Amino acid sequence: MGKDDVVSRFDLTSPTDFRYEVEELKPYLSEEAFVRYKSKVEAALAQVLAERRVIKTEYADEIVKASQEVTAAEVYVEEEKTRHDIIAQVNMIRKRVSDGAKTAVHRTATSYDIVDTANAWRYKDAFNNVIIPDMAALEKEFIRMARDGKDVLQIGRTHLQHAEPITFGFAMAWYVSRFGRRIVDVVKTANSLEGKFSGAVGAYNASALFVDDPEQFEADVLNKCNMNPTEVSTQIVQPEPQADLVHYTMTSFGILANWADDMRNLMRPEIGEVGQPRGKDISASSTMPHKRNPIGLENIESLWKQTWPVMNTVYQDLISNHQRDLTNSASQRFLPVAFTNFDFSVRRATRVAQSLKPHAGNMKENFDMSKDKIIAEPLQLLLASYGHPDSHKYVGDMADESVKTGIPLTEMVAADPSLKPFLDQFTPQQRQIISDPTKYLGVASKKAQEVADVWEVNLKAAGLW
Amino acid sequence: MGKDDVVSRFDLTSPTDFRYEVEELKPYLSEEAFVRYKSKVEAALAQVLAERRVIKTEYADEIVKASQEVTAAEVYVEEEKTRHDIIAQVNMIRKRVSDGAKTAVHRTATSYDIVDTANAWRYKDAFNNVIIPDMAALEKEFIRMARDGKDVLQIGRTHLQHAEPITFGFAMAWYVSRFGRRIVDVVKTANSLEGKFSGAVGAYNASALFVDDPEQFEADVLNKCNMNPTEVSTQIVQPEPQADLVHYTMTSFGILANWADDMRNLMRPEIGEVGQPRGKDISASSTMPHKRNPIGLENIESLWKQTWPVMNTVYQDLISNHQRDLTNSASQRFLPVAFTNFDFSVRRATRVAQSLKPHAGNMKENFDMSKDKIIAEPLQLLLASYGHPDSHKYVGDMADESVKTGIPLTEMVAADPSLKPFLDQFTPQQRQIISDPTKYLGVASKKAQEVADVWEVNLKAAGLW
Amino acid sequence: MGKDDVVSRFDLTSPTDFRYEVEELKPYLSEEAFVRYKSKVEAALAQVLAERRVIKTEYADEIVKASQEVTAAEVYVEEEKTRHDIIAQVNMIRKRVSDGAKTAVHRTATSYDIVDTANAWRYKDAFNNVIIPDMAALEKEFIRMARDGKDVLQIGRTHLQHAEPITFGFAMAWYVSRFGRRIVDVVKTANSLEGKFSGAVGAYNASALFVDDPEQFEADVLNKCNMNPTEVSTQIVQPEPQADLVHYTMTSFGILANWADDMRNLMRPEIGEVGQPRGKDISASSTMPHKRNPIGLENIESLWKQTWPVMNTVYQDLISNHQRDLTNSASQRFLPVAFTNFDFSVRRATRVAQSLKPHAGNMKENFDMSKDKIIAEPLQLLLASYGHPDSHKYVGDMADESVKTGIPLTEMVAADPSLKPFLDQFTPQQRQIISDPTKYLGVASKKAQEVADVWEVNLKAAGLW
Amino acid sequence: MGKDDVVSRFDLTSPTDFRYEVEELKPYLSEEAFVRYKSKVEAALAQVLAERRVIKTEYADEIVKASQEVTAAEVYVEEEKTRHDIIAQVNMIRKRVSDGAKTAVHRTATSYDIVDTANAWRYKDAFNNVIIPDMAALEKEFIRMARDGKDVLQIGRTHLQHAEPITFGFAMAWYVSRFGRRIVDVVKTANSLEGKFSGAVGAYNASALFVDDPEQFEADVLNKCNMNPTEVSTQIVQPEPQADLVHYTMTSFGILANWADDMRNLMRPEIGEVGQPRGKDISASSTMPHKRNPIGLENIESLWKQTWPVMNTVYQDLISNHQRDLTNSASQRFLPVAFTNFDFSVRRATRVAQSLKPHAGNMKENFDMSKDKIIAEPLQLLLASYGHPDSHKYVGDMADESVKTGIPLTEMVAADPSLKPFLDQFTPQQRQIISDPTKYLGVASKKAQEVADVWEVNLKAAGLW
Repeated sequence: MGKDDVVSRFDLTSPTDFRYEVEELKPYLSEEAFVRYKSKVEAALAQVLAERRVIKTEYADEIVKASQEVTAAEVYVEEEKTRHDIIAQVNMIRKRVSDGAKTAVHRTATSYDIVDTANAWRYKDAFNNVIIPDMAALEKEFIRMARDGKDVLQIGRTHLQHAEPITFGFAMAWYVSRFGRRIVDVVKTANSLEGKFSGAVGAYNASALFVDDPEQFEADVLNKCNMNPTEVSTQIVQPEPQADLVHYTMTSFGILANWADDMRNLMRPEIGEVGQPRGKDISASSTMPHKRNPIGLENIESLWKQTWPVMNTVYQDLISNHQRDLTNSASQRFLPVAFTNFDFSVRRATRVAQSLKPHAGNMKENFDMSKDKIIAEPLQLLLASYGHPDSHKYVGDMADESVKTGIPLTEMVAADPSLKPFLDQFTPQQRQIISDPTKYLGVASKKAQEVADVWEVNLKAAGLW
Repeated sequence: MGKDDVVSRFDLTSPTDFRYEVEELKPYLSEEAFVRYKSKVEAALAQVLAERRVIKTEYADEIVKASQEVTAAEVYVEEEKTRHDIIAQVNMIRKRVSDGAKTAVHRTATSYDIVDTANAWRYKDAFNNVIIPDMAALEKEFIRMARDGKDVLQIGRTHLQHAEPITFGFAMAWYVSRFGRRIVDVVKTANSLEGKFSGAVGAYNASALFVDDPEQFEADVLNKCNMNPTEVSTQIVQPEPQADLVHYTMTSFGILANWADDMRNLMRPEIGEVGQPRGKDISASSTMPHKRNPIGLENIESLWKQTWPVMNTVYQDLISNHQRDLTNSASQRFLPVAFTNFDFSVRRATRVAQSLKPHAGNMKENFDMSKDKIIAEPLQLLLASYGHPDSHKYVGDMADESVKTGIPLTEMVAADPSLKPFLDQFTPQQRQIISDPTKYLGVASKKAQEVADVWEVNLKAAGLW
Repeated sequence: MGKDDVVSRFDLTSPTDFRYEVEELKPYLSEEAFVRYKSKVEAALAQVLAERRVIKTEYADEIVKASQEVTAAEVYVEEEKTRHDIIAQVNMIRKRVSDGAKTAVHRTATSYDIVDTANAWRYKDAFNNVIIPDMAALEKEFIRMARDGKDVLQIGRTHLQHAEPITFGFAMAWYVSRFGRRIVDVVKTANSLEGKFSGAVGAYNASALFVDDPEQFEADVLNKCNMNPTEVSTQIVQPEPQADLVHYTMTSFGILANWADDMRNLMRPEIGEVGQPRGKDISASSTMPHKRNPIGLENIESLWKQTWPVMNTVYQDLISNHQRDLTNSASQRFLPVAFTNFDFSVRRATRVAQSLKPHAGNMKENFDMSKDKIIAEPLQLLLASYGHPDSHKYVGDMADESVKTGIPLTEMVAADPSLKPFLDQFTPQQRQIISDPTKYLGVASKKAQEVADVWEVNLKAAGLW
Repeated sequence: MGKDDVVSRFDLTSPTDFRYEVEELKPYLSEEAFVRYKSKVEAALAQVLAERRVIKTEYADEIVKASQEVTAAEVYVEEEKTRHDIIAQVNMIRKRVSDGAKTAVHRTATSYDIVDTANAWRYKDAFNNVIIPDMAALEKEFIRMARDGKDVLQIGRTHLQHAEPITFGFAMAWYVSRFGRRIVDVVKTANSLEGKFSGAVGAYNASALFVDDPEQFEADVLNKCNMNPTEVSTQIVQPEPQADLVHYTMTSFGILANWADDMRNLMRPEIGEVGQPRGKDISASSTMPHKRNPIGLENIESLWKQTWPVMNTVYQDLISNHQRDLTNSASQRFLPVAFTNFDFSVRRATRVAQSLKPHAGNMKENFDMSKDKIIAEPLQLLLASYGHPDSHKYVGDMADESVKTGIPLTEMVAADPSLKPFLDQFTPQQRQIISDPTKYLGVASKKAQEVADVWEVNLKAAGLW
């Protein structure tokens, strides 16, 4: 590594590199990693060429060894001369091998046989080895929160207004299910990334010079890279599988952001339904020493807003003229930034989730604000079911009257002789719900438990628990 | 339909409604259709309520009948009073039924049980009945073009520069495969849309008043709507399945746009590799009577640029506070515009494809421009394979020299004594390629045929041929 | 208007046309309006041609008259034949005039001389006559709210947490200023839209056949259209001025959405700082008769999420190949949808603002939750100013202790002997703030008043009050 | 700088930091620069506090000196403890000053007084000192190209088809004008960025404790930072001025991308109207030694596609709840990436422009392909002007016939007796154009010259020549 290649983190421009790093992703998503994966692809190619007796086995051995030694630093120096990154990298392999082996390096390949395959390979590894396990770790926290809170009464909110009762665990089950399902999709999509070894325009022009079955030859090389070939390629692989992976990753990010938004709002002092101790994710203020600021959750939402617009680049990059126009070359180099921002946020969400505390007392207090009015829904439904001709409007008017007069709706109901014929028909359980809205919970607790259990099973089945 | 509900098409603002309509989609994507599907969901609910003996069978019969009669026009009039679209629609059913049945309408349901289920149902139908068959029709044209052109020599282009030989059919196979694979994904995703019947906050609060197994009750209602329930809901279904459908649809649109861009460029007068007769998709100019303007292809690309940014709305709508905040209500009403724009473009692409003619002569002429230089790749590869120590650079320099001097590369090769020892080792087939670059085609023709065949089989298997 | 041109609103697909219409914008943004403006441009052209004696005055008179009669319906019928909208429209003028005048119609013009000029003209009119006055009407409501609330104490919130005191009027001043400044920018940008009359490739090829000073000729025609020419054009005007108008409009929309989001959150039952009576913008629920749902505010936010992504189309449309490639033709036809959605939302915001009531009592109650802790900031600042060596940390620890013990911070301060030497130095006003945090208001009221006054003056100066 | 702060460039994830760096922007856009600008703001604050006699002059002197010494590295270490970047930075100043001065640091300020002002200041400097001069340098190349090519005949293209004659310089004038006008806007917007010193919620709560005229105090501090205050703030400045700067920058980027796209297409081998020598912006291929790939132009377009979607983040960040919700904190840290990518591309475009060569011979050859047909436009216009009743259709049919038969249109015209009466009336100049379409140039050359001259004057007036 030359002196010029060492930089201060603080001389950098992209926060992904000095503030939101994920060390464990570097072996896949750094530029050094990219160079290394490209070398691994060159090595795989040489091995299959030797198996096919297109080149000598000892040449392949030399190439395999040499390609392990190539560094990004030297490739970048060489690229200054060649103006071509892959020629530069190939030169760095060549200079390490015998004259005979020199001629065997990169045989039949075009640059993007190497680049596209290397990218698919490292993204697949990054997801399987780091990002998916990180997602699973967060999912486990969500599952724990769903279970712990399955009986903790909370007011369900729609339009930001109080609606009907739920439990906090039920609210979390929404995230368990959504995030769990995305994990399944991300696993599938990450493992569906494709490589290619079909040459400069996709027609196997070069490889067909040396082998009779160039499609099988491609499959053999890709097999060594743990990858399948795309059905037909141009200079590049079909862009859709990668676009799908970014889509599934970014929609997963959206679920994180939704959860962060919910939790952050539940932390409003007037609501206070969840809390977090001061620490890495709750900061003070530079001037207001009393503040408790949910910076962890805010950070997740902010990185979400920063990151998902990468989809706009991905969509534009679906289009490449003829057998490829190269205007997706610089742009696709930025995908690792999006993946890192996501993984950083998953990890941060996990840490926040671990310290987040539901405040059952405050939940009950907020619930009680609307307790009386909540019965409006079951009341109008049950009245209707026992034959009340216009229960929605009738109960609605009562609820309005209750707001105006301050007389509790429950009292008004009890005092209303016109309702008596209907109320008398109510079953005991129905009567209980009308008098105690905390019982109007549907199957919230059971559902929370069920969903949590399903996803424990699913994660275990996927080896992710 | 009141007088006010009749408008001139030309008093409209959205081109989707006066310029890019697809009549066949109206039964699914118009506002009238939306109202009708919501009625169908109310009817399905009543039927299951009756099966469960929660309401009388005759009430259900009344409701089923009444709901078939409700029109959007009357719902909109009623909404002026109720300020709530579903209350308005329910009122329009109620006013048509007996007093007893009135109380049974919409029982246990919250608005979005109806809305989300109706949307999923009509989108599913729109895709299965119109959009997917339209996509298949285009795919068939692509397949035909791949087959027809499988042996039509064309220069493959990368960086917009001449690269290596392909055939026009091979170039089309790229679209056959990409579009075909998307069709499979769209079929799957459209049929994975989900409904819900879990009430105002997703906990089955209301339905649990009337049935012991509200989750099964939900499944029964949705079964009548040809739909599965989402694993757990809030007031709304999980947003991801719909987001996926839009993603797969818009990436399919991207493939169309890419194809349109390629064809449009091949129509440049200097290239002239494809052509179209004047007609619906090739216009003249208002002032230049000699022009042939590919307005069909341009239109597809322009609608693509207009439409895919809907993904930005879809992504923002992944987030809804607590058990739903309703800020996705107006925005999701616009999805039919995106689907219509896409389908309109698929149909237009099909019509263009039908009239598009490859010009083999011009393809050959363009090919010949670079014919001589094309051999540089196989030459350097073969030289290397026979032991030339630095063939890439050596041949590269020769190619540069050839450009400078105008002496054909083939002549220079033949005249270069240093190459002779290597050339002598070439097999006859290899020698042929070096002297006739039109043979340097890899497996282009075979691949075009294969891919076309695979997708005929796939479409047939899916009942789409 | 033919029978086919009459449609039911409910057979439409775009909600902008059946749900979010703005009748007053139709004369500018409907398709009929577009045709009419194109006719007006043709008429202006004919008049200047006559002034220049290129065509006879009586021909110009005929053309002016004929162009007023052309309808969109007939143009669309004709376009079926011509496959070209402008040729169709020109034909409809031609068929109404004498043979001599026929030859004079559209003389020197290319289609986009007409289209771009007509679009700029109608957008300019739509903004000046409808959208900008609507924005001003909303600004007036914001000003009123700022003034009415200038002394209404409210807790300022950052991180969704309680921070320092403000007044509700001060919070509104933020919107008065932001929205007011955007109005100024929108006025400027709408009136900077440009037309062109430079022919098919921008070089005045055709007009130079007939006049010696084609640039002045262009300026003369555009002058009749109340417009300036773009500095240099191709077939089309420079795209940046229109992109700027969309940008300023959409950022104005963002301010609306921000305000809606704030108000909607202040309506949470736990906060209750603003309220709205039931009515057009507060709906009930289909099942929960007690609900008060802020559908007006939600609708604004939802249309914002739907509409601003049009910027992604605008950005893509900055690029048009060579002297224009036409892939911006369909897409730019959709701009009226974005403008209408914005104006609809401005109007809805105005209506909401008119009925919105600040609840000073709830504001005070929420303020009191944090009253005690608010003094932490002024206390640490004043302690520091009187020489306390570490006041931020010291007061921070006291605030933490206060949270833990429940002992009010004010009491702790009074009881802390180590603080006495500093407190003794406080001025009476400073002492008052420490004991009464409602006084820690900075210049909130004054600023609210000032900003309101400035914008009344500004609107008046612009003729918009 | 600690050991941990040194990283290999190749361990980085963002290409902006290892591949697309602009060294000259580091003093403004790196994290170190951000810390330095925040220190400068703290220093400015201390100076004004001293001028106002709120703190002692010697304290201000200490603070000014200390703040110059603070490094990002130590701030990041401290932030690990404080969990707050500004508290960390303030601590680093405090530890360098006397106990008395310690109490004076950051007095009255909230974090975002510092952060927003520092960002505005450094962006302003980055634009004024680097980006705008770079834009001007490119504009000068465009001007040169417009002048050099003003008389170089080229076929104007619309729909990618041949339309009417222009000159290459005229085509370049389109870019001179568009880019020039954006420079003016960027200059204006960059210098309109605003700071704030109004405290935690914008009401000057803290500063009003110490000064009687907090708004003037704010203006004084900002004046030292070469900045104006925003009209009214919350915790943060109004977001619109920054959004405008990003908009003007990204639309400038769009113009670059358009130019790159045009040039890249003119380099197609079938067109060949511009060329570039091999070098930093034209690469070979790893396998096809004969290729000439316009990687410079492709890179510009690809970075454009990568970068402009930042507008989607900017738009989302217009919304911040109440007096600020902090979800724009992480996202706005990424703006320097967008600015750097743009500037990198401007520089690359400048280098490409310097080596780009118009090929007048090929332009002429392409022109000649359509030479005959070009006269259709002037012919039909002139025929009409001399009274031909239906010249557009008549000439259109002739052009079609010419295509079919291969007989040149000019010959057909000469041989058509029905045209003679009209042709006889043509002026000599008109007759010349009909027989020599290269004369049908309008004022292309003159306009190219004019626009070039105007922008030389404009740049000079702005001190940018």
